[in-house]
Amino acid sequence: MNAGKTIAAPVFRPMIENAASRGRVVFVCEHASNHIPDAWGDLGLRPDQRVAHIAWDPGALGLARGLARRLDAVLVHAPVSRLVYDCNRAPDMAGAMPVRSEIHDIPGNAAISPDERAARTAAVYVPFHDGLHALLMDRMARGLAPVMVTIHSFTPVYFGKPRSVEFGVIHDADIALPQAILEAACAQTKLVARMNEPYSAQDDVTHTLRLQATPYGLPNAMLEVRNDLIATAEAEEAMADLLAPVIAAAVAGLAAGRVA
Amino acid sequence: MNAGKTIAAPVFRPMIENAASRGRVVFVCEHASNHIPDAWGDLGLRPDQRVAHIAWDPGALGLARGLARRLDAVLVHAPVSRLVYDCNRAPDMAGAMPVRSEIHDIPGNAAISPDERAARTAAVYVPFHDGLHALLMDRMARGLAPVMVTIHSFTPVYFGKPRSVEFGVIHDADIALPQAILEAACAQTKLVARMNEPYSAQDDVTHTLRLQATPYGLPNAMLEVRNDLIATAEAEEAMADLLAPVIAAAVAGLAAGRVA
Repeated sequence: MNAGKTIAAPVFRPMIENAASRGRVVFVCEHASNHIPDAWGDLGLRPDQRVAHIAWDPGALGLARGLARRLDAVLVHAPVSRLVYDCNRAPDMAGAMPVRSEIHDIPGNAAISPDERAARTAAVYVPFHDGLHALLMDRMARGLAPVMVTIHSFTPVYFGKPRSVEFGVIHDADIALPQAILEAACAQTKLVARMNEPYSAQDDVTHTLRLQATPYGLPNAMLEVRNDLIATAEAEEAMADLLAPVIAAAVAGLAAGRVA
Repeated sequence: MNAGKTIAAPVFRPMIENAASRGRVVFVCEHASNHIPDAWGDLGLRPDQRVAHIAWDPGALGLARGLARRLDAVLVHAPVSRLVYDCNRAPDMAGAMPVRSEIHDIPGNAAISPDERAARTAAVYVPFHDGLHALLMDRMARGLAPVMVTIHSFTPVYFGKPRSVEFGVIHDADIALPQAILEAACAQTKLVARMNEPYSAQDDVTHTLRLQATPYGLPNAMLEVRNDLIATAEAEEAMADLLAPVIAAAVAGLAAGRVA
């Protein structure tokens, strides 16, 4: 636990898989890992807390890999737990280095100094987004017309309340791609699929879309899968089998140009 | 001239001045330099073309430096001519590596291969924006509530037509700061000052605002000064004397929170 101390940490660049792919889709997984680097100890958490959904999106990385393989897509994912820094939050948002997540206090985040906030931002957030940015810009410069899709999972029970939605599509400024994905999911699968559930842009969950896609007019969507449906490697593969054709159909319907 | 060839170029990071300042304003000058690095030869241009407004914003850097000194502000500026890569344009915009600027053909940009587009993007555009991004994020993480103001100059005669406006304030999603600057300019100076002249966000000139400020809700504005008014070091200083209190008054009126 290092609350209040400034830590000289290394720089955690994003992991990039299938970089040679030439498909349009760029999958992004901000909450791929529950890894807490040594510099931050255990943040004062018990082992069971460090594998829970508060630390990462269980199943999201496996699903994203399955989708990337099926769609000739590149995948960019973060190597550090969102409890150190949540790469889907700006540095001035409380959720970037949360003091509390759902019903859990995060002792290591209770009293972060401005220097330590800046150090975590420089070590985790900035390299993640710069790496994703460079990849998107390279593909845009080459005329590959990237489409950004972020892959998340959510807990089936939140604050004691069960969630019935199984597949959520969350939109920000771009409505067209999320709508096309939702329509394809309803037509092609039996998933309980809904727009802007279990949360929406109003809840500050679309930071990566706003930062990386909207300024460039790139089609974009955030996908959320209930994590009990992707709890094993086999289940991740089965879900990738279901969702790959859904995403492919939606992307095939896109025009080549910029969106709102 | 290197049209059609891919060039292995070094990386051109932005220049940062007054980094230790703790004022809210971050000045940005995307068109500070008319320097064409050796890798790109002379782009097929005559010496008189390489010092003209098509290659940079004459006077903008001197003005920005004068403003930064007066307002305890940091200044970020690009070290490469916009004819190699215009850092205020996305890689898929024609203006990023323009084939023609006003009445001038740019022979070195006539036939750029996808590899060369990607190489220039990686050498000039990505490092500039990553450097600015890292600086803004550091200041945001420390609670310095940055305000981004970009400094540009425009030619008094464009396509043979004289321009009467002397000071233009261009807004994108944030209207409040630009309006406050325009009102202060009209109240405090005799400049012919107008909103969204000589061009506006519709002309794709607000890329840096959209990329660096809007996703974070940072107050932002783009300022344009007619370059005949800042044609000497003395004139740059005189203009900085005029505009520093204008910007200071507008920034002093801002709330601390996020904007649209």
